[in-house]
Amino acid sequence: MRKVNIGVIGVGRIGRMHTRNLKYQVSGVNVLGVVDVLEKAAQRIAKDLEIPIAEKDYHCLLENKDIDAVIICSSSDTHAQIISEAAEAGKHIFCEKPIALDIDKIDQAITAVKKAGVKLQVGFNRRFDPSFKKAKNLVASGKIGTPHLVRITSRDPEPPPISYVKVSGGIFLDMMIHDFDMARYLLDQEVVELMAVGSCLVDPAIGEAGDIDTAIVTLKYEKGAWGTIDNSRKAVYGYDQRIEIFGSEGCVMVGNKKPTEVAVIGTEDARSDKPIFWFIERYTEAFLAEMKEFIKCIQEDTRPPVGGFDGKISVQMGYAAKESLIKGSFVKISK
Amino acid sequence: MRKVNIGVIGVGRIGRMHTRNLKYQVSGVNVLGVVDVLEKAAQRIAKDLEIPIAEKDYHCLLENKDIDAVIICSSSDTHAQIISEAAEAGKHIFCEKPIALDIDKIDQAITAVKKAGVKLQVGFNRRFDPSFKKAKNLVASGKIGTPHLVRITSRDPEPPPISYVKVSGGIFLDMMIHDFDMARYLLDQEVVELMAVGSCLVDPAIGEAGDIDTAIVTLKYEKGAWGTIDNSRKAVYGYDQRIEIFGSEGCVMVGNKKPTEVAVIGTEDARSDKPIFWFIERYTEAFLAEMKEFIKCIQEDTRPPVGGFDGKISVQMGYAAKESLIKGSFVKISK
Amino acid sequence: MRKVNIGVIGVGRIGRMHTRNLKYQVSGVNVLGVVDVLEKAAQRIAKDLEIPIAEKDYHCLLENKDIDAVIICSSSDTHAQIISEAAEAGKHIFCEKPIALDIDKIDQAITAVKKAGVKLQVGFNRRFDPSFKKAKNLVASGKIGTPHLVRITSRDPEPPPISYVKVSGGIFLDMMIHDFDMARYLLDQEVVELMAVGSCLVDPAIGEAGDIDTAIVTLKYEKGAWGTIDNSRKAVYGYDQRIEIFGSEGCVMVGNKKPTEVAVIGTEDARSDKPIFWFIERYTEAFLAEMKEFIKCIQEDTRPPVGGFDGKISVQMGYAAKESLIKGSFVKISK
Amino acid sequence: MRKVNIGVIGVGRIGRMHTRNLKYQVSGVNVLGVVDVLEKAAQRIAKDLEIPIAEKDYHCLLENKDIDAVIICSSSDTHAQIISEAAEAGKHIFCEKPIALDIDKIDQAITAVKKAGVKLQVGFNRRFDPSFKKAKNLVASGKIGTPHLVRITSRDPEPPPISYVKVSGGIFLDMMIHDFDMARYLLDQEVVELMAVGSCLVDPAIGEAGDIDTAIVTLKYEKGAWGTIDNSRKAVYGYDQRIEIFGSEGCVMVGNKKPTEVAVIGTEDARSDKPIFWFIERYTEAFLAEMKEFIKCIQEDTRPPVGGFDGKISVQMGYAAKESLIKGSFVKISK
Repeated sequence: MRKVNIGVIGVGRIGRMHTRNLKYQVSGVNVLGVVDVLEKAAQRIAKDLEIPIAEKDYHCLLENKDIDAVIICSSSDTHAQIISEAAEAGKHIFCEKPIALDIDKIDQAITAVKKAGVKLQVGFNRRFDPSFKKAKNLVASGKIGTPHLVRITSRDPEPPPISYVKVSGGIFLDMMIHDFDMARYLLDQEVVELMAVGSCLVDPAIGEAGDIDTAIVTLKYEKGAWGTIDNSRKAVYGYDQRIEIFGSEGCVMVGNKKPTEVAVIGTEDARSDKPIFWFIERYTEAFLAEMKEFIKCIQEDTRPPVGGFDGKISVQMGYAAKESLIKGSFVKISK
Repeated sequence: MRKVNIGVIGVGRIGRMHTRNLKYQVSGVNVLGVVDVLEKAAQRIAKDLEIPIAEKDYHCLLENKDIDAVIICSSSDTHAQIISEAAEAGKHIFCEKPIALDIDKIDQAITAVKKAGVKLQVGFNRRFDPSFKKAKNLVASGKIGTPHLVRITSRDPEPPPISYVKVSGGIFLDMMIHDFDMARYLLDQEVVELMAVGSCLVDPAIGEAGDIDTAIVTLKYEKGAWGTIDNSRKAVYGYDQRIEIFGSEGCVMVGNKKPTEVAVIGTEDARSDKPIFWFIERYTEAFLAEMKEFIKCIQEDTRPPVGGFDGKISVQMGYAAKESLIKGSFVKISK
Repeated sequence: MRKVNIGVIGVGRIGRMHTRNLKYQVSGVNVLGVVDVLEKAAQRIAKDLEIPIAEKDYHCLLENKDIDAVIICSSSDTHAQIISEAAEAGKHIFCEKPIALDIDKIDQAITAVKKAGVKLQVGFNRRFDPSFKKAKNLVASGKIGTPHLVRITSRDPEPPPISYVKVSGGIFLDMMIHDFDMARYLLDQEVVELMAVGSCLVDPAIGEAGDIDTAIVTLKYEKGAWGTIDNSRKAVYGYDQRIEIFGSEGCVMVGNKKPTEVAVIGTEDARSDKPIFWFIERYTEAFLAEMKEFIKCIQEDTRPPVGGFDGKISVQMGYAAKESLIKGSFVKISK
Repeated sequence: MRKVNIGVIGVGRIGRMHTRNLKYQVSGVNVLGVVDVLEKAAQRIAKDLEIPIAEKDYHCLLENKDIDAVIICSSSDTHAQIISEAAEAGKHIFCEKPIALDIDKIDQAITAVKKAGVKLQVGFNRRFDPSFKKAKNLVASGKIGTPHLVRITSRDPEPPPISYVKVSGGIFLDMMIHDFDMARYLLDQEVVELMAVGSCLVDPAIGEAGDIDTAIVTLKYEKGAWGTIDNSRKAVYGYDQRIEIFGSEGCVMVGNKKPTEVAVIGTEDARSDKPIFWFIERYTEAFLAEMKEFIKCIQEDTRPPVGGFDGKISVQMGYAAKESLIKGSFVKISK
């Protein structure tokens, strides 16, 4: 099978991880170039991984005829623009979430992708986690009958810097967006309306920045099931990522991953590991699997498992949650 | 210590269990009499357990000067009236939930109890479960810092008969009332407002009877924490009773009890027990502990750990939930 | 069904527990009398539980024509003699382990029982534990194919007093005897030879008393499977009672029971309960179930599930272990 | 820090895995060459991973002055000879277990290493597993007091081909050798004597090949603790790798790793994953960590954590087990 030539745009922590995965752990791939607004960052990783091109401006990748696809890991506000340009240049696109915080911009990007006939995969990595995938497949196979209730717990180990909070779009668009996508993914159903509550319990500075740090959203699915998502910006014990789907014939539960399988029992109690602390470690397998899937879609000319529509609807759910929080009532998801 | 003389009013399943516990497993107690509208039921258990009095009319117990306290396990609609009369007769009272579905009647009963200076304990058995009690004590001790989120899962293994559903007061007053009490108990805080959603997913007949069978309630506590309760009338795998309290310094979780500690691993998977199937078996220890506590309160002249106010507020929360379900918005708990 | 009239011989801790169980939790039983060499102990429980007869000398029970069966909970050195006399008096017999430490005495007791045609059940309570019973039944049902390996862990929370150690017969006859019985029970197979190692690691005083406190025994079953038992007199975290049976098609494991289902996760680790601390609490259900089974065998005239042969063979395994410890090689179990 | 130049000898499954790890996941390394008796295998991986040298004869690596160290993954019978030659050529050495099945050859290899002053690390990968490492560190830190009992369960998912069984040296030298090393590692103590039992329960063909497939070994440690190891060539549910260390102050347990954290509860039971099926997946982290450690020892000029003595003593324990199996008694470990 022909090798897929890749360019990576943005080599911060996530970008470097994808680059390394593509270079070393995904077969059928050549990483031809990396770009970053911090040119030295691009040069450093290019040197380490023996990547030919290291530039500041992403246009060099779009203009490069050898490049088949780009991985967009630049700052969120640049995503939509780069998607549009990459699509026009005929490149397949993997883009980290969110496509944009502005629905119009998302629509423009999606339109550009459609027009160009290229592939667009959005970085909802959790769909590729072996545990969540197995849970979803069990539901799809009918193992628990008709789903009635979905419960998603999603808590970060520590809040981001206040500077980031200010530009993040708020907890619903920055953090819960992953859970909105998970909610849709697990049942393979749309959410028709939702109701959000929340407040600032972790750090008053988050409140001063106009955001909240603790939130619960209640979801209504199109076929009548109900869901809840709870978010906290600070779970001192680590990255808490659990789900549960309860149905007419049973219940599927996904617990946290732990670093080791060690327990020590003493005079007081039995002690075992707390969950894996942060997302890079927690979702190692998922980040790799999503990249493999993207490459496979290009090679086999199939539809990416998570695309522009998924990227858009999750943002719309975030806006609905923001609106609901203010209104104090259910808000329908616009489509 | 002087023995406490007891009369039991109503010897259906719960009444018989309490009678047996008082007779055999609680020290310092004489069970002097049992009454039931089905006189034969009273006579049968009186014969089995060698209890002197077995009558149809509970007034014989109230008029009996040797009796110190009554255990009210008759049908719910009789509770308030019997409480008032028992209080006037100077008897201490243990009464199964709910005191009444009518707030005025609850108030009258509570007033009678106060006037008489007798003790009233309401049958919220789950407070006495060793696991939930430990969880509450961990929270009270500051182990998890300031509570931010409470999650209560409470699912019955199968719905009650439709005839019962019709007179039950509905899922919020019949089933979730236990969870409302648990929510208050866990944080030792009042809930100031709540929001209910739900529908009929288990059995259309429940809907035709004017009730729902699946519900999620979001709670706001007086000090700012948030809570969710989910109820289903039918968890095919058994009685699902879990809680979680998440706070600034950690998280307490209570899982289900299982009949055995056996696991069998084969070529397909590892299999272990589903939860204990129903409440009598699940809460064996709790039912006994609440009786011991009631007797101790009489002997030591202390305040029952769960009293008239708890009985009233949980009913008010049930009404608030019913109102919220209709309104589609948060409803404050009236006091 | 006719009530079974019972006399209890010896009302130390175990005897009182059986008496209470028989009086309150086993239907179809009258407890007519209790005896104890400490007459006051007999009188005290007789008064508490309203038992007509309370004497010092057990012969009064054997001579009492109303009594159908006796429960022997006196000191171990009296068991064989009382069994023989009770059998001659035509009483059915439940006897705590061991029947005797002397094989001849065991044989005499068994002969007396056979001659009299009465029932004899020996107190190997663990067979009646719901978890171990389920494990055994899974094996018997072929769930794990042909058994290859059995592993039994059995550790006490603290050693008995040295005064007891001296007369106990040693760790193999006093403590591991339960595990020998469990080993036979789990596979429903005899052990043909065994090899013991061990030493004094917990407390030198146990060594000075001529015993060891830590032991491992390797077993060979008649159909070729292998087993190991490990014992320690002191597991600081409580009563450690686990088993595992590994076979050609899978593995059955039984873990410890814990007091609650609570876990608390904090910045350091996740903490849950250590095992239940001691045997009365650990085997509450088993002690009751063995009594129910004994009464049922009398009522239905069936064979007790654990009888004289089981009582004898476990003592023979204890002697084989003692011999093996000295010899340093495998020793066959004599029959 | 200067890069370490590596040559890999033998690129079967294990050799390829090490090569890939060294190339992509260990920093500070250049893989300069690979050799294999199947030259095409060497050429294939050299092409895939862009490695300059790909030859049939390992001497080309020993003669190459740029190469600092070799990774020996050739067939077991060649290990000792290659170690000696590599040492003479001044190369540091990582060698898969066993060094040899002949003690004299092991001694010659170790002598050559010592004389040359190069580093030798033996491939006991399990020492580098995060769970076992944590367990060992907990023991070393005194968390469980003085160790009394060690239990190692080690069962393969399926037996090797009979052709391999015939040349493997037998279960003790081929399979349990890992557990002998683990036993020493966990307590950081030598085993002074051991006793082996076992038989052929899995497959008669293994017996016909002169080996057994099921074995239990009892160990005595130099400071008085006892250990047991059980091995089976066939655990149908996957690679079963558990340990337990019991001491005067508590107990450390290591359970199996599972592919996902999913549980599904239905009307019958709760089902979760069986263990990870085979060693490459089970010990992914460990195989990488041992390579990192080897490179670090070269760079920092420190002593490898598992060396020639460890490689020798584990083989001696294997011979002791073979002897014990025949003799039916304990055999001392010669040193």
